[in-house]
Amino acid sequence: MNTTAKEHIFLSKAELAGLIDHTLLKPDATPGDILELCSQAISFGFKAVCVNPCYTTLVSRELSGSAVRVCTVVGFPLGASDPALKAVEAGAAVQDGASEIDVVMNLGFFKGGLLSQVQEDLVAVVKAARSENPQVVVKVILETCLLNDQEKIVACRLAVEAGADFVKTSTGFGKGGATIQDVALLRGEVGPSFGVKAAGGIRNLQTVLDIIKAGANRLGTSSGVSILLEHSNLIETQPG
Amino acid sequence: MNTTAKEHIFLSKAELAGLIDHTLLKPDATPGDILELCSQAISFGFKAVCVNPCYTTLVSRELSGSAVRVCTVVGFPLGASDPALKAVEAGAAVQDGASEIDVVMNLGFFKGGLLSQVQEDLVAVVKAARSENPQVVVKVILETCLLNDQEKIVACRLAVEAGADFVKTSTGFGKGGATIQDVALLRGEVGPSFGVKAAGGIRNLQTVLDIIKAGANRLGTSSGVSILLEHSNLIETQPG
Repeated sequence: MNTTAKEHIFLSKAELAGLIDHTLLKPDATPGDILELCSQAISFGFKAVCVNPCYTTLVSRELSGSAVRVCTVVGFPLGASDPALKAVEAGAAVQDGASEIDVVMNLGFFKGGLLSQVQEDLVAVVKAARSENPQVVVKVILETCLLNDQEKIVACRLAVEAGADFVKTSTGFGKGGATIQDVALLRGEVGPSFGVKAAGGIRNLQTVLDIIKAGANRLGTSSGVSILLEHSNLIETQPG
Repeated sequence: MNTTAKEHIFLSKAELAGLIDHTLLKPDATPGDILELCSQAISFGFKAVCVNPCYTTLVSRELSGSAVRVCTVVGFPLGASDPALKAVEAGAAVQDGASEIDVVMNLGFFKGGLLSQVQEDLVAVVKAARSENPQVVVKVILETCLLNDQEKIVACRLAVEAGADFVKTSTGFGKGGATIQDVALLRGEVGPSFGVKAAGGIRNLQTVLDIIKAGANRLGTSSGVSILLEHSNLIETQPG
């Protein structure tokens, strides 16, 4: 069993950390919690720290000089903000130091068939973010638990056409999170050169490895530290 | 049992409707759903319609000429927006026609002891909203499920001192909603002339009546229609 498990670990600890957005989006996360998150991200080498907008400036300051990227959320978690302000929120986040923006698609407009308004919403966010920093990475959260497969495909197309960089499965606040099936579906739809971020309910190493094999090239989780420790333990406790 | 039930109904159907914010905040609520909500609010005489910001303009247009008020949310549901943008969001909502603003307190700042920042956040929202319309009603959502009793008391004081009009128990997206105990505690703290709105998990007439007796003078629920029908059935099916 240990040998099998080890065979399945196709990534080093550093490679794994480099795929993880170390995330804390709970409404009652304190500045102290966020400082600890940043410190962990630097020591473990996570790809990014992902927090709510009220902490973007703090995180940006804490990660300054490190390789860890600053990620924040826009229109989160419902996606139902004033469309005019979603772009303003994105621009402000980049001004505050965010290098990655995870924006929630307007699901009500989408379900109501207002696809051009969904698209405009996303285009405005991409444009506002890039006008502050052309290198900003934009991820579009689809909230797949609320969509059927056909809707997931349409949503992927909107995200690609809007000029985003990633589709992301879930907010982590919906009734479901990332599934292997959804990750594979999204990867199939967006092709090999677009990003797929899996988030929501990712809490152990096996799930991470399965999700990466299904096609995700980024993971959002608040369990990054325990996942990396699980990786270390498995490697260290195994013979040969 | 019916007689007892009837004795407990101390409000007419119209009085009851006049205490209810008819609410639909689900992320996938379509424009069609919102139009139906407005139509129900007018026919049943609800106090307000409460929706996400992307629908404020639509609701404002639909309710124009009726007595039903337009309510939207700010910093919802996490309360962790960029503090500078919370006020912008509130001002924009009033410009779009909102006469009531339900804003989520910054819970992370609160838990971290940054009470003056929590207060500033709320004051800025009240000020921005009232600068557009001095009559706007501002309700501060405390998310009581995340607070202990002492914290609830402190949060009430911050809301009162910020110049808001109501404290509101819950977003409806947290791990718990309104409780009788919390409503009584909030009413005891803010006194008789301030507002107490109960929201989250209110789905039947008995709960509504208990919560009103505990001190709430406004209720947020997506079950307003069925609660009023329950009221009608109870009155109509009872002898004398």
